[in-house]
Amino acid sequence: MSSSTLYDDFLAAVKFDADGLVPVIAQDAHTGKVLMLAYMNRESLLITLTERKACYWSRSRKELWRKGATSGNTQDVQEVLLDCDGDAIVLKITQKGGACHTGYESCFYRRLAPDGSLQICDRIVFDAVTTYGKVKT
Amino acid sequence: MSSSTLYDDFLAAVKFDADGLVPVIAQDAHTGKVLMLAYMNRESLLITLTERKACYWSRSRKELWRKGATSGNTQDVQEVLLDCDGDAIVLKITQKGGACHTGYESCFYRRLAPDGSLQICDRIVFDAVTTYGKVKT
Repeated sequence: MSSSTLYDDFLAAVKFDADGLVPVIAQDAHTGKVLMLAYMNRESLLITLTERKACYWSRSRKELWRKGATSGNTQDVQEVLLDCDGDAIVLKITQKGGACHTGYESCFYRRLAPDGSLQICDRIVFDAVTTYGKVKT
Repeated sequence: MSSSTLYDDFLAAVKFDADGLVPVIAQDAHTGKVLMLAYMNRESLLITLTERKACYWSRSRKELWRKGATSGNTQDVQEVLLDCDGDAIVLKITQKGGACHTGYESCFYRRLAPDGSLQICDRIVFDAVTTYGKVKT
């Protein structure tokens, strides 16, 4: 049985939007921390399911985004959840290094403080400049 | 100081998409469980921040969606996180009842099983028929 056959039912249950994308929440399988929200098209979702490593679709670069290809900060897939109307996915993962290109563990590293400001609430887990050879924006 | 002034900096940091929406991940503040993914426009986000109860924008009904208005299953906001590029929000909440209109605690109540099927992996926490007076689809 080919991989595409094994995942046919699941792929059929996913409702991709008008751009052919579905939002995917990457959650640390061990701590429950939400690490990032990114998007997948059918191809990147199938790669993710088959290889058990997160592969997204980069909306800015318009290309497959094999998470960690540059940084080494890959995401091993432990569990895949689909929501009630099929238009959102939770990926429970084991994160190598950190998820965010800034060096923070999570992309959600800022919280709204009572005074209305944005306050850092996460920790740096890798050096983004060393990792990428430049400051990524 | 009015509420809109207090949240001006935060609202300015949020990047709404071409439809004026931002995806919002509702996460149980106590267990870390991801409960749902929904969308907010600027107005519903401001209501959420001001009232500390989740208010979304219903893309299907094209109207404000005060979560729990019908079911009583409201979401009290404990913490609001913004991601690195400002285009996704995590809402840490205390959920009354369950988040999903089906009666499950989470909208992500199905997981991909090793055989490729979708397997229930959550618990029913309220009776959807009694709550809504009908089966919601």
